[in-house]
Formats: sequence, C-alpha cells, structure tokens
Amino acid sequence: MLKVGLIGVGSMGTQHFLRIMNVISGATVVAVSDINEAHAKEVIAPYEGVRYIADPIELIRDPEVDAVVIVSIDSTHEAYCIEAIKQQKYIFCEKPLSSSAAGAKAVVDAEMAGGKRLIQMGFNRRFDTRYEELKALVASGDLGEPMVAHCAHRNATYAPQYDDVTAVTGTAVHEIDIMSWLVGDYFTKAQVIFPKSSRHVQNPNLHDPQIVLLTTSSGMVVSCEIWVNCQFAYDVRCEVLCEDGTATLPRPARVDVCTKQLNYTGMTTDGGGYFADSYNREFQAWADACNSGTVNEAAASAWDGYCAAVTTDACLKAQKSGAIEPVALTERPAFYK
Amino acid sequence: MLKVGLIGVGSMGTQHFLRIMNVISGATVVAVSDINEAHAKEVIAPYEGVRYIADPIELIRDPEVDAVVIVSIDSTHEAYCIEAIKQQKYIFCEKPLSSSAAGAKAVVDAEMAGGKRLIQMGFNRRFDTRYEELKALVASGDLGEPMVAHCAHRNATYAPQYDDVTAVTGTAVHEIDIMSWLVGDYFTKAQVIFPKSSRHVQNPNLHDPQIVLLTTSSGMVVSCEIWVNCQFAYDVRCEVLCEDGTATLPRPARVDVCTKQLNYTGMTTDGGGYFADSYNREFQAWADACNSGTVNEAAASAWDGYCAAVTTDACLKAQKSGAIEPVALTERPAFYK
Amino acid sequence: MLKVGLIGVGSMGTQHFLRIMNVISGATVVAVSDINEAHAKEVIAPYEGVRYIADPIELIRDPEVDAVVIVSIDSTHEAYCIEAIKQQKYIFCEKPLSSSAAGAKAVVDAEMAGGKRLIQMGFNRRFDTRYEELKALVASGDLGEPMVAHCAHRNATYAPQYDDVTAVTGTAVHEIDIMSWLVGDYFTKAQVIFPKSSRHVQNPNLHDPQIVLLTTSSGMVVSCEIWVNCQFAYDVRCEVLCEDGTATLPRPARVDVCTKQLNYTGMTTDGGGYFADSYNREFQAWADACNSGTVNEAAASAWDGYCAAVTTDACLKAQKSGAIEPVALTERPAFYK
Amino acid sequence: MLKVGLIGVGSMGTQHFLRIMNVISGATVVAVSDINEAHAKEVIAPYEGVRYIADPIELIRDPEVDAVVIVSIDSTHEAYCIEAIKQQKYIFCEKPLSSSAAGAKAVVDAEMAGGKRLIQMGFNRRFDTRYEELKALVASGDLGEPMVAHCAHRNATYAPQYDDVTAVTGTAVHEIDIMSWLVGDYFTKAQVIFPKSSRHVQNPNLHDPQIVLLTTSSGMVVSCEIWVNCQFAYDVRCEVLCEDGTATLPRPARVDVCTKQLNYTGMTTDGGGYFADSYNREFQAWADACNSGTVNEAAASAWDGYCAAVTTDACLKAQKSGAIEPVALTERPAFYK
Repeated sequence: MLKVGLIGVGSMGTQHFLRIMNVISGATVVAVSDINEAHAKEVIAPYEGVRYIADPIELIRDPEVDAVVIVSIDSTHEAYCIEAIKQQKYIFCEKPLSSSAAGAKAVVDAEMAGGKRLIQMGFNRRFDTRYEELKALVASGDLGEPMVAHCAHRNATYAPQYDDVTAVTGTAVHEIDIMSWLVGDYFTKAQVIFPKSSRHVQNPNLHDPQIVLLTTSSGMVVSCEIWVNCQFAYDVRCEVLCEDGTATLPRPARVDVCTKQLNYTGMTTDGGGYFADSYNREFQAWADACNSGTVNEAAASAWDGYCAAVTTDACLKAQKSGAIEPVALTERPAFYK
Repeated sequence: MLKVGLIGVGSMGTQHFLRIMNVISGATVVAVSDINEAHAKEVIAPYEGVRYIADPIELIRDPEVDAVVIVSIDSTHEAYCIEAIKQQKYIFCEKPLSSSAAGAKAVVDAEMAGGKRLIQMGFNRRFDTRYEELKALVASGDLGEPMVAHCAHRNATYAPQYDDVTAVTGTAVHEIDIMSWLVGDYFTKAQVIFPKSSRHVQNPNLHDPQIVLLTTSSGMVVSCEIWVNCQFAYDVRCEVLCEDGTATLPRPARVDVCTKQLNYTGMTTDGGGYFADSYNREFQAWADACNSGTVNEAAASAWDGYCAAVTTDACLKAQKSGAIEPVALTERPAFYK
Repeated sequence: MLKVGLIGVGSMGTQHFLRIMNVISGATVVAVSDINEAHAKEVIAPYEGVRYIADPIELIRDPEVDAVVIVSIDSTHEAYCIEAIKQQKYIFCEKPLSSSAAGAKAVVDAEMAGGKRLIQMGFNRRFDTRYEELKALVASGDLGEPMVAHCAHRNATYAPQYDDVTAVTGTAVHEIDIMSWLVGDYFTKAQVIFPKSSRHVQNPNLHDPQIVLLTTSSGMVVSCEIWVNCQFAYDVRCEVLCEDGTATLPRPARVDVCTKQLNYTGMTTDGGGYFADSYNREFQAWADACNSGTVNEAAASAWDGYCAAVTTDACLKAQKSGAIEPVALTERPAFYK
Repeated sequence: MLKVGLIGVGSMGTQHFLRIMNVISGATVVAVSDINEAHAKEVIAPYEGVRYIADPIELIRDPEVDAVVIVSIDSTHEAYCIEAIKQQKYIFCEKPLSSSAAGAKAVVDAEMAGGKRLIQMGFNRRFDTRYEELKALVASGDLGEPMVAHCAHRNATYAPQYDDVTAVTGTAVHEIDIMSWLVGDYFTKAQVIFPKSSRHVQNPNLHDPQIVLLTTSSGMVVSCEIWVNCQFAYDVRCEVLCEDGTATLPRPARVDVCTKQLNYTGMTTDGGGYFADSYNREFQAWADACNSGTVNEAAASAWDGYCAAVTTDACLKAQKSGAIEPVALTERPAFYK
C-alpha cells in the first residue's frame, strides 16, 4: 500500500485525493498540505489516518510519506519537485513542471543528477484509451508515416482571467504534449493565427478561437485549434493524416436519440468527465509503478514537461510576433528513453 | 420524346406530372385526366401542348398517347391497367395494382395473355441508391446468405382515417415489396404483434407501433416495425443479417451540427423528400425503357404487385387471428423472370 | 478494507480475483477455494496473505472472511448462497442464482427469512455507463412511455457445447435482466422464432440466430436477437421506441479510420473487453456497499435473479412449443424494493 | 427546348454531352466542336440531329445554337466566352474563366459592357445538397457568425503532370469558390504551408499534402488541406466554426457494414461520382435559367470566376514566398449582386 503525501487540495487536488482514497487500488493518502488549513481538514475529515501537515516541505520529508502528489499552484511545482528528488521519493506532478522553461530544465537536471527517474507529469490524455488506440495505429505503420494532424481543443466557456497566455500554457500545452507523444517527435517551429474572435469573448487580452501551427523535427505539421468559449460543449478533436489514410479520435460513445426531427447524441461541458477514466488510469499506473519501484514509461516524464515548456514559450512569442518562431529543442537524452 | 397520358392529378399525381415536365429527360405529358376538371386544368395551364381529357379510357386510347401513368384512386388501377394492356401501351401504375389480390391476378393474367410485359409498378424504393447498394452487397454473397432482416417504417404522424388496414396496405406493403426484391425471395408466412400503443394514437382501429413478422420460402425472417405516429421524423431502417456480417441502410447524409450540448443531424418528416431522388430515378428509368421498347428489369412488375397483394392479405388476416398465417404464393412465372 | 473469500478461480473467477487485488479500492481477497487446488495455488501465489481453503463451506464460515464471491459452476450457486445467508455475510453471486427457478426461489426465501438483503447478482451490464445513460433517458419520461425495444446479443463464435438451452440461459438471460431493469417491468409472455440457421452452426441442437420475443406486464414488446456465431465481432444492440422518439445504445467509441476505400472503426470479438469497465464498476459498487453495510440498489438482487430464471424457463418452453408461453411472475415483494 | 452548342468532348465534355442528352429536361445538344473530329463524331453518332462543327467560333455564331457550353482546354475559355458574349448567348463555362486573372477580368468587363449577365461558371459544388444545407445553416445565423473553417480536398491519386500549380488552380480553386460562396465573403490574404510530403508523391514539383490558409475580408480564417494522393478515396471535408457551434459536411450516405471485426462504410475514389448529383443539378439549373431568359443566382458568375483567379494567383505566390500574401480583391460590383 503506497503511502502518499498530497500537496494542494483545491478543486483538482481534492479530486485527486478522493480518487486515491476511493478508486485507486494499492495507494492511500497519509498526509495532506494546503495553505487553507480549514478547507484541507474538511476534505480529510471523513477519512481515518490522514494527517494535515502545514508545511509542504515537511510533508515531503515526512518518513511515513512514500511518494508525493503535487497539485499546488503552478509557481510552487519546481521547488517541491526538487525537494522530493532530494528525498528520492516518487512524484506525481500536475502540469506544468515549472512556470518557466529554465525552471523546468532545473528540475530535469536535478532528476538526472539524482540518477533515478522519479517524476510522472499529469498529462492525463496519455492514459485515455482513445488516444492509446490512435497512437498504436499510427505507430504500427499500417497507414504509413504521419504527415499532418488537425487538432482542436474546445471548452464551452472560460474563466474571466483566461487570456492569450493561458490559451497556450493551460490549453495548447495538452495538444503539444499529446501530439509529441503520439508521433514520437518534438517540435521545431511554431506559428499562431488569430481569426476573427467570437462575440462571447470578454477578456480584451484573449483571441478566441486561435490556431497554433506546429512543425516537428521530421516536418510533420500539427494544426491545433484552441477555442475556449465554443459554447456548445467540451470537445477534443484529432485527425492524423498518414501516407495511406487517416485516423481520427472518436467522440465519446453516447446514447443515440431521435426526437423532434433531430438525431443526436448528448455532449458534456465537463472536461473532467470527458477524460475521467484517463485520470483514474494515470493514477493507477503511477501507484502500480511506485509499488514496483519504477516509473511508467507511457506517462510524461520531467523531460516531456520541459519540452512542453519550451514549446509553449515559442507559441507565446509567436502570438506576439505573428511570425514563425523556432522551438529550441534537442533530442531526448538517453536518461529519458 | 415519350408522349405520356397521366390519370389523376391529386397530390402525388401532380408531383409526377411536374416531374415528367421538368425533371425527366425524353418524356413529356400530352394529356391529363382527372375527375376534378377545374383542378386538372389549373395544373396543366402553365404548360403548352397538354390536353385535358375527361374520360380516362378515352385518354388511354388516344392515338397521341404513347404510354400511361396511373395515379388515380386505388380502386380504378385494375380497370385502367387492363384497358392499357388492350392498347398495348406501356404503363406506370402506382401501387396497388388492384384493391384485391384477385384483381391483381386478373391484371397479371391479362398482361401474360397480351404476350408482352408493359407494366412498371410504382415501388420507388427499388430506385433508391441506398437500397441498391444494400441489395448489391447482399446479392454479391460476400456476407454469406441472408437470414434475418430488422426493418422499420416510421412516419411522424398519420391521417385520422389511417387504421390497421392502412398500416398493412399503405405502409407495410413497401417493406414487403422491397425486402422481397432485396433478397430475391417471396413470403410464405406472416404474423403481426401488437405492443402497447402510443398515446398519440387517436383512431381506435389503429395499433401503433406494430410488428409484422414475415418468413420467406427459404426460411429467412423479416421483422418489420410499422410505426406511423413516431412524432420525430420520417425514418426507414433496414438491417440485414447475413452469415458473415450485417448490412444496414444509412440515414440520409445531413450536415452534422454541434450546438447547445448536442451533436445532431436534422431529420425530415417528409417521406417524399426522404425518397425524392428515387422517384426521379424510377420515372427516368421508365421513360428510358419505354423509349427503348422494353420494361426496366429492376422495377416492380405486375407479378410483384400481385405478390404484394397476396402478402398484405395474409398480414390483414394475421392482425385479426394473432396467429401465424400462410401466404399463398408460388414461384415467379417465367414470363416475369 | 473488505476481506473477501472467493469460490471458483476458473477463467472468470481468476479475472474477478485479479480485479479485486489490483483494481478495486477498499477490498482484498483473503481466501480462495477451488476444486483444482494446484491451479488455485498458482493463481494466488504472487499475492501475500491469501489462503487456499479446499472446502467452500469452510471458506464461507471462515471468521476472517467478511464477504463471499461465488464464481463456481452454476449448480453450486444455490447451496453457497444459502450457507452465506446463514452466516449473514454479503454475497456477490455470478449468474445464475440457481440452476432452476425453484432453487432461485429457495434462495430468495432464505434471504427474506434472514431479514437482511445480502446478495448482489453478477449482471454486470447494469454498471455499463451506456446502459445507465439509456435507462436514465427512458426513466426521465422525456421521450414518453417505452413501447418496443429491438435488442441484439451477438458473439463472434461459440463453444461447441453451446446449444439452444445455452442460448437462453447463458445469453438471452442478459437481455432479460437488463431490459427488465431498464424499463422497470417484468415479463409475462415469451415466444421464440427460429429463422434459417447460419452455415457456421455446428451443433445440431442449436438454432442460430434466433429471435426471442418478450412482452412485459404493461404490454411493451422486447425483441431480442440472439446470434452467437455472427463471425464479425462481439456486438450488443438496443433501441428503445418511446412515444416521442427512440434511444439507442451506442457502439464503443473507437478510432475512426479511412484507408483502402473504407471508412471504418474496429470491433472486438472480446465480450469481456466490450464490458470490461462495467465489471470493474460492479465490483467497486459491491465493495463500497459492503463497506457501508448495505447492498447497491442499482445492482441485481436475488429477486432479479429469480425473475431471470422464471423468464428463461418460459423461453425454453417456447423454443419447443413454437407458441407464446406465459411467464409466471408477480410484482416485486416490498423486501426487494 | 434549349438548343445547346458544346465545345470540347474530352472526358468531362463527353459527360456533359451525355448529361444534356439523357438526364436534363428542356435542353438538347444540336452542335459539337472538338479538335479531334473523329472522336467527336463517335460521341454524337448515336444521337440524331447533332451536327459536328469544326470551328468553335462558327459553332458559337451558329443561328441554331441558343446557348454555349465550354469544356475545351483552359487557355481557350476566355476567347470563347468573349465571342459568345458578342453573340449575347448564354454560356456555361467550366472553370477557369481564363488562364490568368487579367484574362478573367477581360471577360468580366466584356460581360458588363454587354449589359446582360450571360455566364454560369462550372463550380458544381454550389449545387451539392450537402453544401446547400451547410450554407443555409450558416446563413441563418442560428449558430452566430462564422469564424473559422477547416476544409480538406482529397483525391486518391493524381495524374503524373499534377504539380504545385495544379494543386492550386485545379484543386484549391474549388475550396476557394465554395467557401467564398458559403460565407458570402471574399479573401484578402493567403499563406501556403508545406508539411513533409507523402512517399506516394512522384512529381518533384509537387508538395503533397499542403495547407492553404485564407483570410476573408471580415477576418474569418479558412484552412484548406489539399491532398491529392491520399490513396484511400475521394474525400471532401468542411467544418465551419461559428460563435455558437460547428457545422460539418457529411460524408455520403453509404450502407453500413459489420464484418471481420470492422464496422465500415465504403468510400469511392471517383470524384465525379461523389458529386454526380450536383453536376446534374447545376446543368438543370442552367437550362431552366436559359429557358427563362435569366441566370441562376446561386451559380458562380463571371465575377466569381475572376475572384477565384485572383485568389489562386495569390496562393501561387505564397507557395513560392512562404509568406502571407495579399489577395487584391474588392467588393462585388452591383452588376453581379
């Protein structure tokens, strides 16, 4: 039974806490840290044997804690990762690895210096069965080489503070990681196109929808539509063009209804629900790997977190320049292969 | 240019008149007959060279008339067919061939006695491209022998006078003809099941939906759901189970929409629109065949009209008895092969 | 942590053992019984703290065992259930409850006499999210009353010993339970129709496909196609006709591929895979309920197991008689509401 | 009966000849011109009353000829249009209007100088019922303003001479016209992106696939994937993103098949077949308009042909520069509204 220390019980942190307590086999939370002590104590109250530890660093160092889940605010991830690496404890770190590419590099360097891979990034889509099927098909080579992908990430509505930066670091980053994983390549160029914006856009610093165009080292082009106030539902699209055919992510299987001159299936606005199964599977995979003294190879590593950070930096630059910007990445180090 | 005499310009007759004048190549209407003279003259007024002939028999005999289209009320079809056979003119006869199986047999006998096939029945679905693809696939044998078919015929709403008899003679008759054509077999047994009826049923002499179960001479079972007040749309379903797979009629290709948490395609309540293309194609095929001095082999013959009549008779008996009733049919005569 | 004793580690029993050990949260297996001692010991070897107990009755009575999972051969279910009821331990019993309707009634009576509901039957489809959505929609009344359902249960191939009896007790029984659950009604009449059989049928005592027609107490008709050598895949279909529309179970969401002039999605021949998620969810629900000292209300009860047995008995009679046979069921007792 | 003179009976010209003779109502071909006299005479041989006229200009001037269909090689369109305008005869001109934007402008100017609209361009997709439904939905405003469209034009294979120029002038031009028509706007900017090319590309002067990015005067962005050796089928995709939802062109309705662990629909490699119905409808619309002494307003005008030429010019420039190129277009003149 893996004994987990969890940092941050905001919305997603609480979901992860409940997941580990109620759904995951072979893991349990023994300690929780959060700046909001009252709230944290409320969350853990129904469960016996879970301690509140105010200081996250103390939690990481606590001898009862086998492994750490980091769901605190973005700016803290880097420091907590580095401390957990010092303790040589396994880490589940929600994206991003750091709030800067340089910080991400520091974590990568610390992990490599420690000599043992410890970090699993929270890029949950890698554990979505639909993406798994898509990757398996593309990797099989049955359709030839991938050349183009048309992707879309759509949210029904966005929080007021959501702006062009968040569009990249909070949304496009998922497309960046998943497509890099799907085709086993990294990005070398980025461009961002701003079409006419929706009347539903309220933040003057947001263009919505926008199109992020990425090129991989082999010349594949990935077009990612980012549209965060599409109104109609949470929706993720991915069509991969290979030399001998196309492969497209399906929408979720929902009951097919005919009524009132419509033939429809329902859609959800809940992104968590859309990918609920993948969250459970990524945590089960993490717990299983920790219990086996290893990391899950399908999951995103610290290196993947670093790649995502470098790529989003280029996208942010491209938003401002309107030009095609280089992405300064290199081949994956042997340590992460 | 085939010169057509058309009997009956009610709703469907007017559609056929306009079709021949405006859509079909190689045919034109030269004479129209209808009991409502004023209405008929209104219909033909915009077109030059179309005469009104009060007496349908006179119209059939008119020397300018090359071929006859019969869209008058059901009870008149038999007599007009027999007159046109006497004149050895080509006939397009809307279903039914006669209002009784005996009457249908009389037309078949007259046509055989005349020594030349002249009649094309208005079973339009045989010219629907989706049914054509389905038949071609089943006939190819690629999926093995057909064993079962699940069919459904759904109308959004029905006319007040629609009752259990019409459910068979006006609706199930289409399933009977098309399925017989599709698998190249005829029916030997019929059963009708009455589930709980919809609250939308107003006619006390109607059970709706109902399920007509038919068995072919080879033992294939065809289940036909007849549901004429389904409210939601006009809808026709057909799934054929063959030994190595299934083949299913698609719904029409309609624009796929995502909005308001629904992913939908529109449906129509208009059966004429659903099959519009097949009406055009059956008339073009008829005109082409007449102009070539032959009948179209894919179209329903007088024999097919007779088979449909015998089968609907058995269904009507089965509605009353609740039992499995025999269908008294024999192999197709060589004349109709 | 619920301590489970599991009887029977054949194919499905082993799956359930591994499920409880590796996937389910809050439960663990502490004892296993099986007539094949060597095999059972092999299955449990990798796991610490799991004892082998040769005698199932002894296992049921073992003080460490909180709850019992019965996956042994059908004929033993009744006796093990009755013993576990005596011990007032929670039971997960794979279908059937007994090999006879009378035996099922005996278990129901024993449970009622014990005064506490203890049994959850292994009708996994009730925990399939697609069926859940379908039931929720039908139950909402948004589409009006259900009147007809077209169901199909298809297996790619069947074991040589599979015959007309198994078609009912092993296959149709799933449709019987799920449809009864879905519309909240029980069956009063059964008929079985034998179409022409597939050339792939090898057992002379099997008709395949066959159509089971069931009528509920309210007059709804459920048509269940049972086709166990359809060759192409494992496939389950369900379309419910309500007064204002239809609702249809979707196929699983699979990657959509275009290649070689086909637009396809893959299908699986693995029924376990088709419903894998529902197996996990039914066991999690069972463990959660046991840990809360209750039974899961969505799951099938002993009464549901009894209803299934009475209905399959009528189907078996209908296969032989060719007639419409009564199903001798009554309203659900208050104990099971 | 419209008497048509047709210039050019190559592959498409012959199809159009047969279409007018056999499918279209109210029109017939009376004269044909082609540089290959023997072939032309073979094509017309089965039909009475069709003359061969060697000189196209003579054919245009022939007093029996009411209207002209131009399907000769691209470089001749401009001169034949101008001659037919001189004769004030109606014209059906296959794309392009001219082999240069300047030439297209000359035709526009000639038509305006003549004072009467005479030209219908052969952009057949405007008569495809699926595009019509899509346009009607977008134009209705029910989904809000269109902001982005993702389009794709895919051919299974290409002719050896097909190169980057043809990719624009022969293929992208269809997307340019249809999208301009669909949203009622014209393009102001063009960019072309070259991803990694397929191994199936043989012509060194072809990049395939390629992505053409177009911006309209209102800021809408249209992304057009051009992929002419996709191997799998002829395929056309169009998804329009509006402020409140998306609308997507369906694939053709084809029989849905389950066999060998696949659930598939067939696809065709035949672009003519994919859009067959639209060719018939555009010619019927043309014949009807000519017979009424007018032009069809839904069809592409000479102005539309000119817009397409200017836009393709910008695309060709963008292919070479790799930059975003301006499209030098202005508002539609009143003459063409």
